Amino acid sequence: MNAEIITIGDELLIGMTIDTNSAWMGTELTNIGFNVYQITSISDNKEHILKAIDESFSRSELVLVTGGLGPTSDDITKETIAEYFDAELVMDKEIYSNIEKMLRVRGLEMNENNRRQALVPDKCLVLQNSRGTAPGMLFERSGHILVSMPGVPYEMKHIMENHVIPYIKNYFNREAIVYRLIMTYGTFEARLAEILSEFEAELPPNLSIAYLPTAGVIKLRITAMGNDEKTLYAEIDRQIDKLNLIIPQYIFGHDGDTLESVIGDQLKKSRKSVSTAESCTGGNVARMITSVPGSSAYFTGSVIAYDNRIKIDELKVDRKAIDTDGAVSEIVAKQMADGIRKKFRTDYGIATTGIAGPDGGSDEKPVGTVWIAISSAKGIMAVKYQFGPTRNNNIRRSSLAALNMLREQIINNQ
Amino acid sequence: MNAEIITIGDELLIGMTIDTNSAWMGTELTNIGFNVYQITSISDNKEHILKAIDESFSRSELVLVTGGLGPTSDDITKETIAEYFDAELVMDKEIYSNIEKMLRVRGLEMNENNRRQALVPDKCLVLQNSRGTAPGMLFERSGHILVSMPGVPYEMKHIMENHVIPYIKNYFNREAIVYRLIMTYGTFEARLAEILSEFEAELPPNLSIAYLPTAGVIKLRITAMGNDEKTLYAEIDRQIDKLNLIIPQYIFGHDGDTLESVIGDQLKKSRKSVSTAESCTGGNVARMITSVPGSSAYFTGSVIAYDNRIKIDELKVDRKAIDTDGAVSEIVAKQMADGIRKKFRTDYGIATTGIAGPDGGSDEKPVGTVWIAISSAKGIMAVKYQFGPTRNNNIRRSSLAALNMLREQIINNQ
Repeated sequence: MNAEIITIGDELLIGMTIDTNSAWMGTELTNIGFNVYQITSISDNKEHILKAIDESFSRSELVLVTGGLGPTSDDITKETIAEYFDAELVMDKEIYSNIEKMLRVRGLEMNENNRRQALVPDKCLVLQNSRGTAPGMLFERSGHILVSMPGVPYEMKHIMENHVIPYIKNYFNREAIVYRLIMTYGTFEARLAEILSEFEAELPPNLSIAYLPTAGVIKLRITAMGNDEKTLYAEIDRQIDKLNLIIPQYIFGHDGDTLESVIGDQLKKSRKSVSTAESCTGGNVARMITSVPGSSAYFTGSVIAYDNRIKIDELKVDRKAIDTDGAVSEIVAKQMADGIRKKFRTDYGIATTGIAGPDGGSDEKPVGTVWIAISSAKGIMAVKYQFGPTRNNNIRRSSLAALNMLREQIINNQ
Repeated sequence: MNAEIITIGDELLIGMTIDTNSAWMGTELTNIGFNVYQITSISDNKEHILKAIDESFSRSELVLVTGGLGPTSDDITKETIAEYFDAELVMDKEIYSNIEKMLRVRGLEMNENNRRQALVPDKCLVLQNSRGTAPGMLFERSGHILVSMPGVPYEMKHIMENHVIPYIKNYFNREAIVYRLIMTYGTFEARLAEILSEFEAELPPNLSIAYLPTAGVIKLRITAMGNDEKTLYAEIDRQIDKLNLIIPQYIFGHDGDTLESVIGDQLKKSRKSVSTAESCTGGNVARMITSVPGSSAYFTGSVIAYDNRIKIDELKVDRKAIDTDGAVSEIVAKQMADGIRKKFRTDYGIATTGIAGPDGGSDEKPVGTVWIAISSAKGIMAVKYQFGPTRNNNIRRSSLAALNMLREQIINNQ
């Protein structure tokens, strides 16, 4: 059963806004068994909206539309969809009072733009939006469903979770398609595909594998199609068991796991704590660790030592080591990791020191040179990495490498 | 002149990957005067790729295609486009040796998958990719151009900047469309639209304004169309002068400015330095500050004090203050800001302490309660914010609020 997503807004086409809504909706639709056939982004232009909706609605059973419902005059989605379904706009008292209430909380008065938001087509099911002023609208025709929602991500997600997903699950009869993700770190897509070529060839015909690379992390997705979800998941799990034998060194988790959530689980389970001493990552390792809810149970804190003075005063790095080996060196990374572990009395200490760029590189230590160290009661280890020329990429790559080193160290220490 | 973007890959449709390429290409195309008509995301399916390409290529003068050029068997874009243009695949020796070289650097041998990447259609202009193994391909027919590029963002950007943009600038005659952005912080879209309704009504007919909200920051885009770029920019600048009189309290910058780049400029210009003491933001304020190249000139470092013990030991927060007022309080925020400023001997100290969630809230201090303080030689000020229920949103909103408070404080101290 096909679904499509249409996102409306000039800001998407001129690139001012990255379309994160489509990825989120794509995941949700896939999870409940829809085949997402196409994602289309178009501008706030009436003729184009009508054409895109008509094409999608005629080839796919479900069409989700976001955007163009704001209070400003460039937002014309509601009027256009009403026209497509031959509907009249009428005032909805519940929405009107919801908008009034939301504005009151913010200390604002109702204005003409807000009043216009309380108008809805008379041929739709109105989906209340308790997080914003524009409601969602659901239209049904000849067994097909079209839903229009605001483009603000957290309003759209709220309407999807509370109204749209329950409704369409009930409305459509779906074929079972399930998948699981295997999260890997430490190699390249082409290399992984080569190692797994035999595994891939031996997959049963109703199973398939896909490689989904992001910067540093490659996700493997195994998808299964058939009648019974439970059987399909068991089939996938059998394949995951095989993968655990072929590439154990690269697999760090499954499904929603991230390196930071996995080390969180490891530390909670073993009742250990961690702190970070960051130079080139500038707090990004700490930010990743603390993005996990409940991280205060195992994360104590950090010293971000951008200035060498802070490395010396706070982390007890030898001034001489900096003078002879430089701030980006094995000895300084090790002293930083050990310094933070002792200072904050944690079980593990992570340290990063490198040249993020674009400036500061030399022939001997080009931009992208990074030393990462982990200190624990069992000793201190450090690894040198050579990343590329791009500052943000170097910060991200260094942070992932640091988290993965900690993950391996915790396993080794067990 | 219309342009379209087609992104190919199952990972986009099932939502495993957010399509950031389209936004980047959309910005580039807009900057050189193209009207981006549509962005279409489709799966690695031959019939669908042929149909999407044919539709886009017939209605738009320029079509940029990314993705589906990887070494694995699910990647079929090259073969499909070759078929569309009736081209044969032939071995390209330059690409072959480039791939060989890239693999050698990584210590890898050429395999069958890599060899397949050195095949190119005989009817295209090959665009060298020095950052990866898949080259770009440019096709021309009846005054229309189609370009196929890899989906890896930093490879695609490299090919766009070095080959595609110079080529299409030269190939097409463009009408002049220019725009500038005005960055605002501190209000809502509907409120801003209300304040600016008169301004909007008075705009000359060849100028338009759009509201581009992101979480916390609203960008205003003023676009101008006409013959002469220089005249158009002068017209836009006249309107920006007007905006500076109407909403000075919200405007913090223009075009590529971010709050972190603006405070970077302020600090560099005034030769001042900053450090941060972060609890609920967990390093995110430092990460934002250090994402700016050259930030080591004014950013000294941070103490991330997740544990109250670190607040007391490192930042000299009164244990009594934590006991009586709690860690999320005005007095603790102020002591943290002052503590870090004195400890690291910087001109400014930023502190954040709050309840990011999802746990830890109470009736008196619900999730989203955040105190932010700024310390400088002129004194310490603190503000209480009430954000929402979402952890990541609270971290982001708190970080933006902290940076904006610093920005205002630096202006006030001048």
